[in-house]
Amino acid sequence: MLTDNWKDLAVKAQNIYKDSLAKTLELFPFDDEETYTIYKSLPTAIGETTTDYGKPAPYPIEVYAEKLPAKVKEITEKDPIDLLKDLKAKKYTAVEVLKAYYHAAIFASKLTNCVYEFLPVESLAFAKHLDANHAELSKTFPLFGLPISLKEMIPFIGRSVTHGSLCYLDRVVDYHADIVNILYKNGANPFVRTTNPQVLMMLECESFAHGRTVNPYNSSLTCGGSSGGEGAINGIHASTVGLGSDIGGSIRCPSAFNGIYGMRTTVGRIPTGDYFSCQIGSESILSVTGPLTRSLGLLELIMQTIVESKPWLIDPSLNSLEWKPVSTKRKFRLGILWSDEVVNPLPPVTRALKIVKEKLLKLDNIELVDFKPYNHLKTFDILDKLYFEDGARDVKSTLTSTGEPACEQTVWAIENAEDLDMHEQWKWNIEKQKYRKQYLKHWQTYTNKDGEVLDGVIAPVFPNVAAEHRTAKYWLYTCQWNLLDYPMLVFPVTKLDTSLDVPQKDYKPLNDYDKFQHDLYDDPKKFANAPVNLGVVGLRNTEEKLIAITKVISESLGT
Amino acid sequence: MLTDNWKDLAVKAQNIYKDSLAKTLELFPFDDEETYTIYKSLPTAIGETTTDYGKPAPYPIEVYAEKLPAKVKEITEKDPIDLLKDLKAKKYTAVEVLKAYYHAAIFASKLTNCVYEFLPVESLAFAKHLDANHAELSKTFPLFGLPISLKEMIPFIGRSVTHGSLCYLDRVVDYHADIVNILYKNGANPFVRTTNPQVLMMLECESFAHGRTVNPYNSSLTCGGSSGGEGAINGIHASTVGLGSDIGGSIRCPSAFNGIYGMRTTVGRIPTGDYFSCQIGSESILSVTGPLTRSLGLLELIMQTIVESKPWLIDPSLNSLEWKPVSTKRKFRLGILWSDEVVNPLPPVTRALKIVKEKLLKLDNIELVDFKPYNHLKTFDILDKLYFEDGARDVKSTLTSTGEPACEQTVWAIENAEDLDMHEQWKWNIEKQKYRKQYLKHWQTYTNKDGEVLDGVIAPVFPNVAAEHRTAKYWLYTCQWNLLDYPMLVFPVTKLDTSLDVPQKDYKPLNDYDKFQHDLYDDPKKFANAPVNLGVVGLRNTEEKLIAITKVISESLGT
Repeated sequence: MLTDNWKDLAVKAQNIYKDSLAKTLELFPFDDEETYTIYKSLPTAIGETTTDYGKPAPYPIEVYAEKLPAKVKEITEKDPIDLLKDLKAKKYTAVEVLKAYYHAAIFASKLTNCVYEFLPVESLAFAKHLDANHAELSKTFPLFGLPISLKEMIPFIGRSVTHGSLCYLDRVVDYHADIVNILYKNGANPFVRTTNPQVLMMLECESFAHGRTVNPYNSSLTCGGSSGGEGAINGIHASTVGLGSDIGGSIRCPSAFNGIYGMRTTVGRIPTGDYFSCQIGSESILSVTGPLTRSLGLLELIMQTIVESKPWLIDPSLNSLEWKPVSTKRKFRLGILWSDEVVNPLPPVTRALKIVKEKLLKLDNIELVDFKPYNHLKTFDILDKLYFEDGARDVKSTLTSTGEPACEQTVWAIENAEDLDMHEQWKWNIEKQKYRKQYLKHWQTYTNKDGEVLDGVIAPVFPNVAAEHRTAKYWLYTCQWNLLDYPMLVFPVTKLDTSLDVPQKDYKPLNDYDKFQHDLYDDPKKFANAPVNLGVVGLRNTEEKLIAITKVISESLGT
Repeated sequence: MLTDNWKDLAVKAQNIYKDSLAKTLELFPFDDEETYTIYKSLPTAIGETTTDYGKPAPYPIEVYAEKLPAKVKEITEKDPIDLLKDLKAKKYTAVEVLKAYYHAAIFASKLTNCVYEFLPVESLAFAKHLDANHAELSKTFPLFGLPISLKEMIPFIGRSVTHGSLCYLDRVVDYHADIVNILYKNGANPFVRTTNPQVLMMLECESFAHGRTVNPYNSSLTCGGSSGGEGAINGIHASTVGLGSDIGGSIRCPSAFNGIYGMRTTVGRIPTGDYFSCQIGSESILSVTGPLTRSLGLLELIMQTIVESKPWLIDPSLNSLEWKPVSTKRKFRLGILWSDEVVNPLPPVTRALKIVKEKLLKLDNIELVDFKPYNHLKTFDILDKLYFEDGARDVKSTLTSTGEPACEQTVWAIENAEDLDMHEQWKWNIEKQKYRKQYLKHWQTYTNKDGEVLDGVIAPVFPNVAAEHRTAKYWLYTCQWNLLDYPMLVFPVTKLDTSLDVPQKDYKPLNDYDKFQHDLYDDPKKFANAPVNLGVVGLRNTEEKLIAITKVISESLGT
């Protein structure tokens, strides 16, 4: 029997947002009437219902920059690492900083629909606790008082975790995820839960629980997904750092699309095992947790803080790999992946690769080589089977149970899913293991005469800048590294330039995937203002090295 | 259609053994006629066919000690670490040492049926290469010239890998396992491939490819399994160290039953991914590689050598955890697991626990606590599903394809197997993950006021000493740690004492498992001469610490 229970649940989900907003404004009122007036007049990406996408400003970030009160910006536009110093030095109280970030997030949320719900009661209590114990805690807490955001899928006590499926709206969890506890124990203050798309398998951010999150740089583009709310809120600077998860690109695409840093970590480094999502218990391909932030310094600090908390003593799936910082002064051998040879990158991405190459060629401690892809299409074959090894029965049941329609991107994601028998699963696991071994061998072919292994490969994150809504249908530049379990750190390079990034004339597509992407890029103006990011990929468990490489790159770019 | 092709294959398998023996004696002849005469007169565990178990001596190790030529013993009875020094100092050539070990192994094999095949051609060539380049290689190779044994399942180029199923007899592999390459590159010389039982899921060592391997200490007892040949050949001192694999106790039981050291390593530390076995591609519970040896020093050296070769640059499933030796001088907090509360250990095992406790109480750097098991029966529930998640279809097909009968122990191992649907597999994976987390929490309850985590738990390896043939039907003392992926290092404590280890009067069994084990122990004389071992278990990736703890224990025991 079909139900349309999902419609009631969608209203309920929207009310969760509205109620948390009202509570936030009650506890953290704007400073003057004028701000209320400005706030009310903001164009919004939040519709009347969650099937209505509002009428966002074309360039929400410009409205944000113009309208956000100066007093708020004084705090939120500070580099979070400096803000942390101010918090420790008591230049600002934790409550003051929290209030500023709430006002920023309230503006950002109206402009882009990036917040699933606010956490005013919990965060105010924690900020007060920090302020009351400043002398002691500011010394021991590396993240003292920093407001941070969390992807909705990360379990937070007393809250429902839908991960984009309305059927779970009434499942209220009775625990904090381990990562939440670790962050609290280090002084970070979770203040908002951010939007994520239906069933999470989407490089965009649409769901019937929240509607659509738009890209702050250009609202006709997606903010990316599945950690889409994180991408948008950090891209607009209304959070200091957020945590997302990534099984196919879900941290890296939103980071790239919103011009920020974001890292897909190696499986077993950061707690992830106690999250909810579809297909939990499926172990063939595992999701990982990682940070998204505009601050590379904070990305390093939060990674270091988490690893130094020895999370393997809490989460038995983690490996006891200590945090070992890598010097930026040492020599790095880097590859450049110009194309995966399935879909050639579009002009802004290729230009970014050239910019980075040119800058790095000037550095004494960098050796550059061209890196050839090794049969990346094989990854598609394998992941097609292993992402939804139950034939997406689990995903489908989360929808049919309430009559929730499948989003266009969900339909696309699961269309090839097959319900595997145990021997078929094993067969594809063997294919996966073989391919991982072949790829490692391929990587080793770049080892130089002195036995120095390639330290990283600079690569596109997506063939294009942020895609127009409902067209982000190619994830091989990211899921490639999920299959291999290689970490990847995404970093900003430049912005789309409508005069430089013109479509290639008489381009001959390599195949249908390539044609689809190139056809979409018929007019660079569609992508005006979009950030252009790249990423650096390394062998498993080399997060520290990727941070050092990214510091070198970012410094040479002046970003 | 039923076939009995297996009978021809069994003859062929036996001929592989016979031919390799003939070749060995051709290349490494005994020194005199007398030795041939002695060899011919040895009672044997090798039958006329592989369904005939011969007429082994009651205590093969006594015959071995009496009959093995003194000149051979001069080399093979040396502590392998001292022998290594002699090899490096050119006191013996690699060929001389190899010859001595071949003669020892030929005797051992006839007495216990522990060798699947000899590798005379390859090992002689390698030994000559080492001798010819002694000046250079003796400096760079940590394992210079040491003859080592390999479980038959470990791929060796140009050899078939049956892992106990005759259907694979004609599958000749075209590569060395990564671990074999690593050992060669460090100077170790594989000289024999040792027996393993039908489909490997057995704590004994019977197959239609080789017959039955008996315990050198008492031939009416099993040598254990599945790395049974390794247990026997190392127990009798006819190898320096061997490599086995362990998914439920397959390194630890043979180590315990033969009075030697043996380590179940953490998943991801030592290459294992390129082995053959049934259910490859099944990732819910993974097998690991580890050493079995009479020398704790050599166990440490081989582990260190393998890890320092950075195997994660070859095998992508491994983690880049460096080898970090732990001092024996530091303080250790140790638990003692007196019983898993499912099957209480039998008198010799409990006595061994008491011996160790008494010795450790005298040491200043050891703190002891009693460690309670945390619902170990849950492990049975989970492993019953996950060991054979295809309902043992794979195992059964390896037998039916040639008409090979299932051994009694194989039937026992797979009798509860269920062919799981994908969602059932996921469900049991979730149960596994939950239980691992609960257990880690349980372990943490032993953390002391200063925040010092428990370093290890001293525990039985099996409720009894080596079992009588076809009665080793309880593996919870070992598979418990496979489910949790905790490493465990097994060490010798004492020998069974028929006067001290008398059955408990009026014992009230806890349950049917307990009754079965206690009923078997009606007369300690049945187990005369059997070694009594224990093990120490640690959290994941603490191999170095377990070695340090075992050094402390072994030193205090004088073993």
